[in-house]
Amino acid sequence: MIISSRQNDRIKSIRALRERKERDASGTFFAEGERILRAALQTGAAFQLVVLAPDRLTKSEAALVDSLEEMKLPLLEVTPELFDLIALREEAQSVGAIISQRWESMSSVNETRRCWLVLNDIQHPGNLGTLIRTCDAAGGDGVILTGRSTDPYHPIAVRGSLGAVFSQRLVRASQADLARWLPGSGCTVVGTSPDGDINYREADYARKPVVIMGGNERTGISKEQIALCDQLVHVPMGGYVDSLNLSVATALVLYEVLRQREVLGSEPA
Amino acid sequence: MIISSRQNDRIKSIRALRERKERDASGTFFAEGERILRAALQTGAAFQLVVLAPDRLTKSEAALVDSLEEMKLPLLEVTPELFDLIALREEAQSVGAIISQRWESMSSVNETRRCWLVLNDIQHPGNLGTLIRTCDAAGGDGVILTGRSTDPYHPIAVRGSLGAVFSQRLVRASQADLARWLPGSGCTVVGTSPDGDINYREADYARKPVVIMGGNERTGISKEQIALCDQLVHVPMGGYVDSLNLSVATALVLYEVLRQREVLGSEPA
Repeated sequence: MIISSRQNDRIKSIRALRERKERDASGTFFAEGERILRAALQTGAAFQLVVLAPDRLTKSEAALVDSLEEMKLPLLEVTPELFDLIALREEAQSVGAIISQRWESMSSVNETRRCWLVLNDIQHPGNLGTLIRTCDAAGGDGVILTGRSTDPYHPIAVRGSLGAVFSQRLVRASQADLARWLPGSGCTVVGTSPDGDINYREADYARKPVVIMGGNERTGISKEQIALCDQLVHVPMGGYVDSLNLSVATALVLYEVLRQREVLGSEPA
Repeated sequence: MIISSRQNDRIKSIRALRERKERDASGTFFAEGERILRAALQTGAAFQLVVLAPDRLTKSEAALVDSLEEMKLPLLEVTPELFDLIALREEAQSVGAIISQRWESMSSVNETRRCWLVLNDIQHPGNLGTLIRTCDAAGGDGVILTGRSTDPYHPIAVRGSLGAVFSQRLVRASQADLARWLPGSGCTVVGTSPDGDINYREADYARKPVVIMGGNERTGISKEQIALCDQLVHVPMGGYVDSLNLSVATALVLYEVLRQREVLGSEPA
């Protein structure tokens, strides 16, 4: 049976996952689009329910649904119109899924390959998605969220991450949890701030793994965060503006970590 | 007289500037908030009308208004409630201005200090604002917009630029204009693409000034753009995702240009 009514209880519960309260309560989220679902599949995410519009599946979407069916996952078939009501993205697409959120606690993190990104009080899901994506691209281990940070499982964050919400490790921690964990972590803690006393290219990210501290989009890194840093770096500016977008400044530091660790051979390429 | 009615004709015409059609027709835009207006003032932007809510001015906003009054600019006083209706930003603020747009044509650009950023078919004003800000921070000359690009004078772009829409040179050009200009420009043309054959850190940005080609957020750099490039570079990826956000990838290249030109001493620091 193909569902067409927006009054259907399962449809209502999927749409409710747009709200953080519902995502937090259920420990799940709704991911949409083939690219994101393939990332979920490839990284072993826990699918709970697959939603599709069978009348509009592309060949490639149909192949994905076949793979998901082989895993004996429950399927929910809906009309294209109803799928468009569930989905947030404008581009027509025809497959989505309810997936379990995946979180680690600070105390369970006992090894760092290259680096962690800590984000405190980050506000915009689009920025968070981009930062998770960039951390993944730079070969980072994962993202630690402290304070009142937005949700990486917000639909806009999931989309902006291009699937990196599945590949990156995600940790939710208090400042106190983080402060307890850092001394035994074996990591150098680096904060980015316009007031940093070292050029970000001159800091040492190669001898030990790195924890990069990022702050709120408007107010930057907090005093509590600075107190935990071994080094405070700045990005030089050559024009009129006196600060960079959080995603941009963090990306520059992440890629400098990658460059130094590759150049200095402190880890396999 | 302090205006309180949203039916006032001048208020209606300010609000109409939210639409690109009106901005294009008038050659103006509405800039809001003290930080942005200070950037406009410092860079010699052409103010047409200053709008303020005198009952809510902070001390620092009042000082700014004094500076603007000394320039004999026309002032429009409104109630705080009406100012909130005009403004797009959520945070309470009390000063804004109608300012003339500033554009250059491709043929009038006859010198490059360090680099230009070309953006083709860029869609989101938030991305455009961030890119203009980053180009400024990296000491770039300005931004050349081709194709169906969004408007740098869109309120979200102006805000995201942190004032760099005033400090950066802005050029609107067709692909044909650009293609005619490039050979005589003395610049190396560098495109960024996941298919680029050179690591972005290994390309040479130091011997000549650089033109960096950026594409649409989803579809990337176009075939027409690639045909104009001397070098096609890629940013290495160390994780699951296979591409970076446009603003992030472009920032990495812009800052590599800055690094090489500083390190190699090809220009004054």
